[in-house]
Amino acid sequence: MTSFVGGNVGSWRVLRVDPVIGVPLAWISRLEVTEQEAQPPPGNWVLRGVTAFDRYVTSAERSLLEARQESLGRQSATSAALIPIRKSAAWWDLPHDERRAIFEERSHHIRTGIEYLPAVARRLYHGRELGEPFDFLTWFEYLPDHAAAFEQLVERLRSTEEWRYVEREVDVRLAWDPPIPATTRVPR
Amino acid sequence: MTSFVGGNVGSWRVLRVDPVIGVPLAWISRLEVTEQEAQPPPGNWVLRGVTAFDRYVTSAERSLLEARQESLGRQSATSAALIPIRKSAAWWDLPHDERRAIFEERSHHIRTGIEYLPAVARRLYHGRELGEPFDFLTWFEYLPDHAAAFEQLVERLRSTEEWRYVEREVDVRLAWDPPIPATTRVPR
Repeated sequence: MTSFVGGNVGSWRVLRVDPVIGVPLAWISRLEVTEQEAQPPPGNWVLRGVTAFDRYVTSAERSLLEARQESLGRQSATSAALIPIRKSAAWWDLPHDERRAIFEERSHHIRTGIEYLPAVARRLYHGRELGEPFDFLTWFEYLPDHAAAFEQLVERLRSTEEWRYVEREVDVRLAWDPPIPATTRVPR
Repeated sequence: MTSFVGGNVGSWRVLRVDPVIGVPLAWISRLEVTEQEAQPPPGNWVLRGVTAFDRYVTSAERSLLEARQESLGRQSATSAALIPIRKSAAWWDLPHDERRAIFEERSHHIRTGIEYLPAVARRLYHGRELGEPFDFLTWFEYLPDHAAAFEQLVERLRSTEEWRYVEREVDVRLAWDPPIPATTRVPR
């Protein structure tokens, strides 16, 4: 279980908290990512998720992903995004083959993501079964040099058929900026 | 979120608590099924799960299921089974298409279940994302007259390739027997 704790402490400095679809999230100035139990200070928030098995990825797609993807925590990847998403009841009522068809055969979610590898590293967390307000939390890390590529990736996904089923989305942008003296900073 | 509370109170009288694979569950005499928050008395247990979307069912299979399945809570369905299952890391590491192939194309999990409809009503609860000890809790209800059919269904599923990935399974059998005076019993 991973918690994304929004408040006024944390290693990531918040650049933007943009409501994209539906109810916004409160502004915060700092974000911490932790596997500890976390309670938010008043007025702040905690979003929780678990990394789980792939729901739609085939073995061929997984091979492509594994050949190209980068791990999280690269020292140079000082830009990050946290994009929480909630999909509609209409989506969850679809049988698996229809969800897969919309997700990949028609919206090319996996294929599009692969185009931006290895520049953009990502990890998906599931929150729906936990009773969380968001079904998914996607965490992205990239070099500042790749910011334009990341914007393009996000725009392409938002224009797909799959995104018509998104009923809530927030876009949190972050910069790595741990609150310790610069002289004692160690690589992540 | 549904809780299956094993102890010495509850509307279901326990007939058997059989360890099938791996670590057993403690014997209990009664079981309650509740959507309230539930804490087990010492020595007893609570298993929790959420009903979720279908992970493998196609639209064609869902149509078949919906045409034939019975709802839970039939007054005459006084026999029940709770079968908690945990699958191995090897299962969860497989990509979706390989899990689906093992689950249905080679193990015929859905097709086999459909053969026993409408006699055996069932509902699947997911526990893995909750950090529960079991990935799935399957709840079955059937008429005592259909007990032999239910045994056959369970045996057929346990003999499949899919079941090689089961690392823990317990089989709890129950009879509807709410603890109120017989003269005041009302239909469920």
